[in-house]
Amino acid sequence: MSHNTFGHLFRVTTWGESHGPALGCVVDGCPPGIALTEADIQPWLDRRRPGQGKFVTQRQEPDAVRILSGVFEDSRTGGQVTTGTPISMIIDNVDQRSRDYSEIAQAFRPGHADYAYFAKYGVRDYRGGGRQSARETAARVAAGAIARKILAGVTIRGAVVQIGPHAVAPERIDFDIAAENEFWAPDAAIVPVWTEHLEKVRKAGSSTGAVVAVEATGVPAGWGAPIYGKLDAELAGALMSINAAKGVEIGAGFASAALSGEENADEMRMGNDGPMFLSNRAGGVLGGISTGQAVTARVAFKPTSSILALRQTLNEKGEEIDLRTKGRHDPCVGIRGTPVVEAMTACVLADAFLRHRAQTGGGAFTLG
Amino acid sequence: MSHNTFGHLFRVTTWGESHGPALGCVVDGCPPGIALTEADIQPWLDRRRPGQGKFVTQRQEPDAVRILSGVFEDSRTGGQVTTGTPISMIIDNVDQRSRDYSEIAQAFRPGHADYAYFAKYGVRDYRGGGRQSARETAARVAAGAIARKILAGVTIRGAVVQIGPHAVAPERIDFDIAAENEFWAPDAAIVPVWTEHLEKVRKAGSSTGAVVAVEATGVPAGWGAPIYGKLDAELAGALMSINAAKGVEIGAGFASAALSGEENADEMRMGNDGPMFLSNRAGGVLGGISTGQAVTARVAFKPTSSILALRQTLNEKGEEIDLRTKGRHDPCVGIRGTPVVEAMTACVLADAFLRHRAQTGGGAFTLG
Amino acid sequence: MSHNTFGHLFRVTTWGESHGPALGCVVDGCPPGIALTEADIQPWLDRRRPGQGKFVTQRQEPDAVRILSGVFEDSRTGGQVTTGTPISMIIDNVDQRSRDYSEIAQAFRPGHADYAYFAKYGVRDYRGGGRQSARETAARVAAGAIARKILAGVTIRGAVVQIGPHAVAPERIDFDIAAENEFWAPDAAIVPVWTEHLEKVRKAGSSTGAVVAVEATGVPAGWGAPIYGKLDAELAGALMSINAAKGVEIGAGFASAALSGEENADEMRMGNDGPMFLSNRAGGVLGGISTGQAVTARVAFKPTSSILALRQTLNEKGEEIDLRTKGRHDPCVGIRGTPVVEAMTACVLADAFLRHRAQTGGGAFTLG
Amino acid sequence: MSHNTFGHLFRVTTWGESHGPALGCVVDGCPPGIALTEADIQPWLDRRRPGQGKFVTQRQEPDAVRILSGVFEDSRTGGQVTTGTPISMIIDNVDQRSRDYSEIAQAFRPGHADYAYFAKYGVRDYRGGGRQSARETAARVAAGAIARKILAGVTIRGAVVQIGPHAVAPERIDFDIAAENEFWAPDAAIVPVWTEHLEKVRKAGSSTGAVVAVEATGVPAGWGAPIYGKLDAELAGALMSINAAKGVEIGAGFASAALSGEENADEMRMGNDGPMFLSNRAGGVLGGISTGQAVTARVAFKPTSSILALRQTLNEKGEEIDLRTKGRHDPCVGIRGTPVVEAMTACVLADAFLRHRAQTGGGAFTLG
Repeated sequence: MSHNTFGHLFRVTTWGESHGPALGCVVDGCPPGIALTEADIQPWLDRRRPGQGKFVTQRQEPDAVRILSGVFEDSRTGGQVTTGTPISMIIDNVDQRSRDYSEIAQAFRPGHADYAYFAKYGVRDYRGGGRQSARETAARVAAGAIARKILAGVTIRGAVVQIGPHAVAPERIDFDIAAENEFWAPDAAIVPVWTEHLEKVRKAGSSTGAVVAVEATGVPAGWGAPIYGKLDAELAGALMSINAAKGVEIGAGFASAALSGEENADEMRMGNDGPMFLSNRAGGVLGGISTGQAVTARVAFKPTSSILALRQTLNEKGEEIDLRTKGRHDPCVGIRGTPVVEAMTACVLADAFLRHRAQTGGGAFTLG
Repeated sequence: MSHNTFGHLFRVTTWGESHGPALGCVVDGCPPGIALTEADIQPWLDRRRPGQGKFVTQRQEPDAVRILSGVFEDSRTGGQVTTGTPISMIIDNVDQRSRDYSEIAQAFRPGHADYAYFAKYGVRDYRGGGRQSARETAARVAAGAIARKILAGVTIRGAVVQIGPHAVAPERIDFDIAAENEFWAPDAAIVPVWTEHLEKVRKAGSSTGAVVAVEATGVPAGWGAPIYGKLDAELAGALMSINAAKGVEIGAGFASAALSGEENADEMRMGNDGPMFLSNRAGGVLGGISTGQAVTARVAFKPTSSILALRQTLNEKGEEIDLRTKGRHDPCVGIRGTPVVEAMTACVLADAFLRHRAQTGGGAFTLG
Repeated sequence: MSHNTFGHLFRVTTWGESHGPALGCVVDGCPPGIALTEADIQPWLDRRRPGQGKFVTQRQEPDAVRILSGVFEDSRTGGQVTTGTPISMIIDNVDQRSRDYSEIAQAFRPGHADYAYFAKYGVRDYRGGGRQSARETAARVAAGAIARKILAGVTIRGAVVQIGPHAVAPERIDFDIAAENEFWAPDAAIVPVWTEHLEKVRKAGSSTGAVVAVEATGVPAGWGAPIYGKLDAELAGALMSINAAKGVEIGAGFASAALSGEENADEMRMGNDGPMFLSNRAGGVLGGISTGQAVTARVAFKPTSSILALRQTLNEKGEEIDLRTKGRHDPCVGIRGTPVVEAMTACVLADAFLRHRAQTGGGAFTLG
Repeated sequence: MSHNTFGHLFRVTTWGESHGPALGCVVDGCPPGIALTEADIQPWLDRRRPGQGKFVTQRQEPDAVRILSGVFEDSRTGGQVTTGTPISMIIDNVDQRSRDYSEIAQAFRPGHADYAYFAKYGVRDYRGGGRQSARETAARVAAGAIARKILAGVTIRGAVVQIGPHAVAPERIDFDIAAENEFWAPDAAIVPVWTEHLEKVRKAGSSTGAVVAVEATGVPAGWGAPIYGKLDAELAGALMSINAAKGVEIGAGFASAALSGEENADEMRMGNDGPMFLSNRAGGVLGGISTGQAVTARVAFKPTSSILALRQTLNEKGEEIDLRTKGRHDPCVGIRGTPVVEAMTACVLADAFLRHRAQTGGGAFTLG
């Protein structure tokens, strides 16, 4: 697998820098015959788009996606469908604000990947963060939109469940309402708390971390595979690859460390629709294979390192300098990270579905 | 990548079931000319071996490893070295205690992967958990021992930092002493606390979760790669693939969600040996690339689901049954998980080193 | 893909040297529920086995295969089936004749890979050719036997169609009789010609090249995929990876260079069982995708370089020496290469089947 | 590896159809710091471009390449260099002549991949052959241009050595002159012969096959790897993936089948620059590893199936029809295939170089 590709059978290769002419991705391995036009993808991009609301970056990008290949008219229906060949998508960069980069061109912004890129490559596109910019995640969201089309019957919803020290109580989480507010908050009651917190953060030129939860319902039992293709391991890798992610948990996650076996193991009974579990500490995955329960995960996002405070750092000459990171930034990257978490979950699941179908034909064995 | 292989260039393929004749792995892509005999591998296996101490499974396995290929005498030194060809290692299963499996052969133990395997494959080796058994991790430890030989200058140490509700205070963690006690405890003061807790757990026929920390020092800047080959993403996937793992964090991890940008971003100064950081919230990785700081991660392990309590579940016929999981089990799988966490970290780092060397020649750009 | 693994979903990792304790392979990705015991594999190994007939190496190897993992009793039928987990197979090396290797230990046998291995690795197991020995192909044949089990309805047959300058006339090729003689000759009339030729070669301590043909019937339309997963490209890579292979053709192959478009393109009509072609210059593959016709390929094998004549070469010190390659060798490696060609074809087809099933569900669109 | 990606570390993903808005590729894994602008790539594309000369398709395409990502100014030299991130290249389709496709939209052109695509996907872009069009090879040539930049010291040259029944005598092949005529002929004396032949073919509305040879000099010993990453096996797969390729040989190839061991094995002596071989039947590869000799291969191209003769075939309804393939076509695809053969050889070698550097550090062991 290469550095800029993820997935095994549903494969996504992304490219592009923050301030280059465009960014995009190639989605390979998509099944043929799936209805697909730009209109299936654009709404998901619109949800991730910058410039919406007070607490995200003010960069204005229409993020209009164009499909360059891999679709054609279906001779039977006349509608546009996937052909099974690679789907190339491109998103032009529009608002690459012309500015003076001389201050940071050879300086390492603390907490950014500047120094690491320099040490590895000796050269980097410093404009807007280059390849390390969160703009790359637009390509992930475009790919995720295609993954969702493959996943008929699966619903994937994300929500912010913590901003700074303010977490939503688990019992109050309602994924249905998350898309209705600018924070992806699954609890209306937390909105004023976060608003106040972020207002303070923004005024201080600071930033704050967050936790994003995601839930995929409708995933049948049997997806994923031991030992190194485990569904939860693939999910962990994919989610941790999102910019600013620092932790991933599945199901009860870190809380399970404090539990006893009796508290943790989900018991089973026979429901009307087949096997059912009496709880979901497992997060819908056992032994790396889906159980038919909702697949649940949580991702910790660090606060963005782009803040107004003067910080100690170095430049390429090895000189000690103090640096302030100006520019347009998200005070809480977790918010716009939510659609990205959903997209990566969709991609992992679509890939798991195809792999499962390859090895077994695609069904699940039933009891009785 | 296939289901039972991990790594890109340093590749490990494992095979074997708990109660089959043997288990093992094939390590492919190892550089040639590295001194290697069974004596380099056995000590690491001995650290993971069952049957040692009161709080791990009483199954008696010598876990003696044999190398079947990939090594030969060096014509210059006469010592045995790797030849660059695949290294096949085998570990015989010795203590496959003959017992009656009729009770669980067609029943799904709650919290185990039994049901998920059945739904996917329609068939499973139920003896001792078959492929889902933690015995598979012996092969990972053997591979990790080879990875360590590649990683000259890198030191990888793990420790249990929480058992049940009892966590070690971060400032008291001393990796140097972890290997000295049966709990991999990095703080002598916690030993009596854990002993008392585990004694209760064991007597109750219950189990408990744990958190394992790992730290790799000596990793130079520049390993790992954006965007989907990020060092932390690879680490997250590899660690989450360990049996019973439910969460992974890098550096400050989930705690970073509550931090401000000022608190989180690690500042830099020039030290005697080059660039240095004034803190390590990043866990040694920025933008998916190592920074030269210690790479740090933590893994949450759930309590094993093998407990004596009677639990509600189903069998293959779809009948509701109550089941008690007898047999020899670890009351706290996190303890024996520690060497496995180390091994997976070693494998990921060895792979990152080779990939870095491929793309860049292997060095790091320096300042000045 | 790693160096010692081939296949994407049906993946085979082989290991072992000619004179090590054993050799073997791990087959990963096999569908579950397929009846499999050693008795399904051994007959194919017996066909490749050395020590049979005058014109193959006299090394005596029983090549008895043992399955170490990946199979278990089916709870419904009681028979042994694949479980979907990795199948590890091992074949002990028995007749590693103890001899004096001092002459070749540091010398490069002309035409062998000795020098190339040395230049790359600086170390090599020189006993019997080490990893470059054709003994490795036993593992391929074992894997191929499993691939055949997956390929219900597909028949794969190989035959030697040329030895030295003596080729079988195309119109006389009858794959049905190839397994009946010691040469895999598909034409009884060629047997005395080859016998006389090989008798001379053997007496002269020389060797001779050969061409092996393979034909897979029953492959449905739709397997393989553009652009870099083409069925014929995968086949070419797999067949060229066999020891001593120097050329691969599909269908009309090199002869198509001299044809006109009218002569080359296979016309179509409607047959009783669906679309049929009036000729098969394409070798059953168009655009990298199977057409439903027989998949046909031919592989050129060079004469083995192990001959009794004194040859000019170098040793590790860079000294010019003259060397005679003693030992037990096949005067015509193409003969024993035939079952290997079949096995590689089976593995490629099984892989193509699984990949096709992943992307499309596994069927083929029909006309009308 | 996915369907539309090739390479392991130097990875090329191509996309695009003949009559879509554009085609392109993403090159991932390129080392950083390599000087690269469009001017390094365009000349290679110009060599493959249609509309040049009487005997290639008259489609007029400027094939102007644009680099969209992966390059930036080097802070030390100010020149544009690769950054180590993915290089996205795009080539607009300009001359997608608007025409009436109703005749072939649902018919299968004999000898084309139409039927195979339909059987697999149920849908295909029939305009100009869609994804199966040779236009896709422009992306390969663009990638090959980057591969050449990585391969400092390696020279890769192709030539047509046979058109129809007219072959160049081996001893007359001079790669230096091949780029000087419209046929890539390495022998000036063959030019009038081929001109006459192709004139006849063109007038008859027919087509003819060809053989292309390629030679890479300057490849050091040690590249490639046993057993399934053999340099010649990778080359065979890559070359066979080119449109219309039906055969691949390395070194003496199929001719080696008729040789004796004495004739075939290349002897060695010590030259002024180190080990030298007295012949090159091996084609520069032994045991899958380069020997330091020129790497040589030959590819057979079938005659294109687009001819004016009326041919028997079927349509999507299963009806028997007679079809004539009109349009703009190459009467001998092998001619324009030559730069593609060179490009694929470059990509395979660049990949082998990176993999070799990963495992061994990149050097070769020397004698003495």
